[in-house]
Amino acid sequence: MTAVTLDVAKELIATAEQKAEEIDVPMCITVMDEGANLVAFHRMDDALLASVDIAQNKAYSAVSLKLDTDTVWELSQPGESLYGIGDTNDGRIVTFGGGIPLEENGRVVGAVGVSGGSVEEDVTVASAAVEMFESL
Amino acid sequence: MTAVTLDVAKELIATAEQKAEEIDVPMCITVMDEGANLVAFHRMDDALLASVDIAQNKAYSAVSLKLDTDTVWELSQPGESLYGIGDTNDGRIVTFGGGIPLEENGRVVGAVGVSGGSVEEDVTVASAAVEMFESL
Amino acid sequence: MTAVTLDVAKELIATAEQKAEEIDVPMCITVMDEGANLVAFHRMDDALLASVDIAQNKAYSAVSLKLDTDTVWELSQPGESLYGIGDTNDGRIVTFGGGIPLEENGRVVGAVGVSGGSVEEDVTVASAAVEMFESL
Amino acid sequence: MTAVTLDVAKELIATAEQKAEEIDVPMCITVMDEGANLVAFHRMDDALLASVDIAQNKAYSAVSLKLDTDTVWELSQPGESLYGIGDTNDGRIVTFGGGIPLEENGRVVGAVGVSGGSVEEDVTVASAAVEMFESL
Repeated sequence: MTAVTLDVAKELIATAEQKAEEIDVPMCITVMDEGANLVAFHRMDDALLASVDIAQNKAYSAVSLKLDTDTVWELSQPGESLYGIGDTNDGRIVTFGGGIPLEENGRVVGAVGVSGGSVEEDVTVASAAVEMFESL
Repeated sequence: MTAVTLDVAKELIATAEQKAEEIDVPMCITVMDEGANLVAFHRMDDALLASVDIAQNKAYSAVSLKLDTDTVWELSQPGESLYGIGDTNDGRIVTFGGGIPLEENGRVVGAVGVSGGSVEEDVTVASAAVEMFESL
Repeated sequence: MTAVTLDVAKELIATAEQKAEEIDVPMCITVMDEGANLVAFHRMDDALLASVDIAQNKAYSAVSLKLDTDTVWELSQPGESLYGIGDTNDGRIVTFGGGIPLEENGRVVGAVGVSGGSVEEDVTVASAAVEMFESL
Repeated sequence: MTAVTLDVAKELIATAEQKAEEIDVPMCITVMDEGANLVAFHRMDDALLASVDIAQNKAYSAVSLKLDTDTVWELSQPGESLYGIGDTNDGRIVTFGGGIPLEENGRVVGAVGVSGGSVEEDVTVASAAVEMFESL
């Protein structure tokens, strides 16, 4: 198994930072491990301060629900099955995109959480890190 | 840069209070600096007690998201991209109007948060302070 | 009764700020009313960020316990009667000096809370505001 | 002023990690900026999970009190002036060593927080980062 060590987290964050620079949006980037514990966090200069919390909670949501947070967005809409899930877990569940699980052989071993731009931009940056993880 | 010092905050709050008196609605008024730290807060006599928290959190939301909270209202509706953002950040994100960033040369250097009346009244009072800031 | 209105709070804070400037220590200064609700808060430039919370909670402690927080310090020591009180009230009870009730005819009608220097300096500045209140 | 940018934070953390490897104790290492906002956090493999929170709160304590947390330990003992300060600020004040302010020309511009070993080990690692900052 590729455990989400600090070395792996540094590579994932470096990849995310490079993508964030490419699209010119400063981001907060988080990596959590299989136990939903923080491995590393970087706030790029001038990134939104609200994103310090949101990026971490996107990673928490993705690893603890084994879902990307785009899917949580769909499932948490009024009338959908997980409506209200954002109120649980002391407010740590984020219900919009930017948190993606890290998977190996179908097993969730960690997650990446990105916040700082539009949801689309956050997903772009988080996806770059996830793709890099899959190539390890 | 016009840093959001206590002297600046006092002027902003005085302007907001004057506007609140004009429209005859007692308000809670908050000013935060670039680091999302409280600089000053005034509760006018008979203002809503819930507004003590809401005014501060509107200012926090505006500076930490670099958005006015009217825009957060739009983006956080069911089906919109940031649906559920009010659950993040320990409940400090306010999803309706009355928090406005203070900007200088396109850079967010602080925020004003006002609560106590209708959202429209809150925005009117907050806007008066922001206009005053822009004239400094 | 001299209610702790915003006008009164402004006078108390102005007095405290003047004293803080005299002793050359930037302070956070809070005034609460009889209902333990925040009336006004000012953070002087360069005051400690931890004091944003502590100053408010000193005022809360003083009005909600009807005690100055110097007395709370004494009563909360190991072996003393209120040992552990700092753990109650969601951590809002401060167990060292700088919070002083505002009294009128023996009735607590509000409080001042000051933080930013040594406890002795905080007490000096809070006391200046309280003396001013007593002269109203 | 040497602002505590992400690049500076990465250098500080790299220095701290090297020292932690030298003494063979896995650490959690945090860097905060002048506004007490998180810039970067790394958890070395096998570091204590409790240290995720403690390292961040040591940095918060150091920057928000403008004190190293060794000094907070002294001042917060029973009978000392700040007894009970660990209960304030939502429990974010850490009352033992491992948090050290980053200063420039006598001004606190951020802080480092380290947790994972004995307090002496934490201070050793945090001090390595601070010395490196002073050489920038």
